[in-house]
Amino acid sequence: MTIEPMNLVGKSIAGAMAECAEQVERMMDLLLPKVEGNAEAPLVEAMRYSSLGGGKRLRPFIVLQSAQLFGVDPRCAIRVGAAVEFMHCYSLIHDDLPAMDNSDLRRGKPSCHKQFDEATAILAGDALQALAFQILASPETHADAIARSELVMALARAAGMEGMTGGQMIDLLAETRELNIGAITRLQRMKTGDMFTFCATSGAIMGRGTERQFHALNSYAQGLGLAFQIADDLLDFDGKEQDTGKPTGQDVKSGKATFVSTLGPERARFQARLLSEQAGQALDFWGEPAALLRAVACFVVNRDR
Amino acid sequence: MTIEPMNLVGKSIAGAMAECAEQVERMMDLLLPKVEGNAEAPLVEAMRYSSLGGGKRLRPFIVLQSAQLFGVDPRCAIRVGAAVEFMHCYSLIHDDLPAMDNSDLRRGKPSCHKQFDEATAILAGDALQALAFQILASPETHADAIARSELVMALARAAGMEGMTGGQMIDLLAETRELNIGAITRLQRMKTGDMFTFCATSGAIMGRGTERQFHALNSYAQGLGLAFQIADDLLDFDGKEQDTGKPTGQDVKSGKATFVSTLGPERARFQARLLSEQAGQALDFWGEPAALLRAVACFVVNRDR
Repeated sequence: MTIEPMNLVGKSIAGAMAECAEQVERMMDLLLPKVEGNAEAPLVEAMRYSSLGGGKRLRPFIVLQSAQLFGVDPRCAIRVGAAVEFMHCYSLIHDDLPAMDNSDLRRGKPSCHKQFDEATAILAGDALQALAFQILASPETHADAIARSELVMALARAAGMEGMTGGQMIDLLAETRELNIGAITRLQRMKTGDMFTFCATSGAIMGRGTERQFHALNSYAQGLGLAFQIADDLLDFDGKEQDTGKPTGQDVKSGKATFVSTLGPERARFQARLLSEQAGQALDFWGEPAALLRAVACFVVNRDR
Repeated sequence: MTIEPMNLVGKSIAGAMAECAEQVERMMDLLLPKVEGNAEAPLVEAMRYSSLGGGKRLRPFIVLQSAQLFGVDPRCAIRVGAAVEFMHCYSLIHDDLPAMDNSDLRRGKPSCHKQFDEATAILAGDALQALAFQILASPETHADAIARSELVMALARAAGMEGMTGGQMIDLLAETRELNIGAITRLQRMKTGDMFTFCATSGAIMGRGTERQFHALNSYAQGLGLAFQIADDLLDFDGKEQDTGKPTGQDVKSGKATFVSTLGPERARFQARLLSEQAGQALDFWGEPAALLRAVACFVVNRDR
């Protein structure tokens, strides 16, 4: 009996991702413990509601895989992974708000403002962002304060006006404006790509990587991020709500310019595969230790949620 | 002719605050430059609209005064002051949102979501928060990475769920719930006091203060923060919109529990004066170098905006 190598990778990555998700979930639970009796308890409840118990934890997985390339203590990497995931969850809460994407469903549950209310959702997002930076700057995350400061700076850049938040702004404007493929690429690089770049390079920050290593991880993340986004657009285009855990068909409904609306679904699918392969190749010189990062690049284009 | 010492202090603090405001404004303009041509330009415009050209810059002033007690390079302190002010401005944008305090006016101008729209205002606040941490973690802010990390941790704690954001959550709940004076004090300590504590102790973080010095600055900030908040409640109670630059009479209208509604205006005024004096006394052992910090404590209870 022969086993296809692709399947093996497919299996090992599913197992590795599940294990990582469990560890990160435990760390997030520890870093954001339940509060009882205090007047601000509803805020913490909303923060926990929207960040615990769900999600692929893809970003923390990339952090952990990047960290092991540099022999970084996994306990440090898990804290960085938790910080990134808190940041990601804050962005989901705010993106779902009525004034933004107005989405009632997230990870198969009511979105934060539906479960609580808008004010609580805005504040929960705000506090999750602050928490992410608090974790990164803590001596428990890394013994070297230079590494901690660099993590904070890199995440702030990836999440702020030049990255995720700027990208979300352009994304909202894209509903009323024609964007060409170059503009869509820039928007998606900012909105999702820069956070992937943070994750992929975080190991090099923690483990003092060389310029060449940073460069390789950057190339990897750029391909991965765009491939991920095209797959996301395709899931919105022809995915099922019961798989994705959020409403689908939203881009067509809002007339938003996406990779799929611009390239058409077939060329978009082809492009996602190509980017995913290129991402994997950027890590070739690492050999076997980068196998799971390469597998992630396959995973993001083949997922159904 | 005799000049009352109080007046002298009153004059010198007005001049010193105006000078500080100018320097901080210039630094903020430098750290958040205008963007033209890029698709995310409206986001940056909204961030600049809500953070430049207005405000007392009281928090940066406290940072600068705290820093000079420890002989910290004023160029470092101004960057920290700018970061704090960006953080403060983000909180004002989000507090004004329709789902929160629903306020149309801020610093005498339309609030951010009125001038732009709700989505832009939410994102502008989000990006200003990220910017604040990016500035603190930058090597240009402080040569010592340990100090930078400590600044990030302290600001994150002051701004997050245990501080400002948690306080704002309780404040919103206070409209529908009875709060006693202890609960109001805790709420205000979180909502405004913790940020003042960050400002007052930031000099000790940058200049490696002793435990006794931290303790004194903490006591100062606790008194100052509460005095400031009571004065704020009094301005809402009997101030004029043309002075405050924002709608007044909101607390009575919403039935919110405040120091004024609980103590009555006279006892509240007395309490503010007492706290302001106690704040000043906490810095007595510093003598003359802390004169302007003591003057700030007088200023916050005597201001009309």
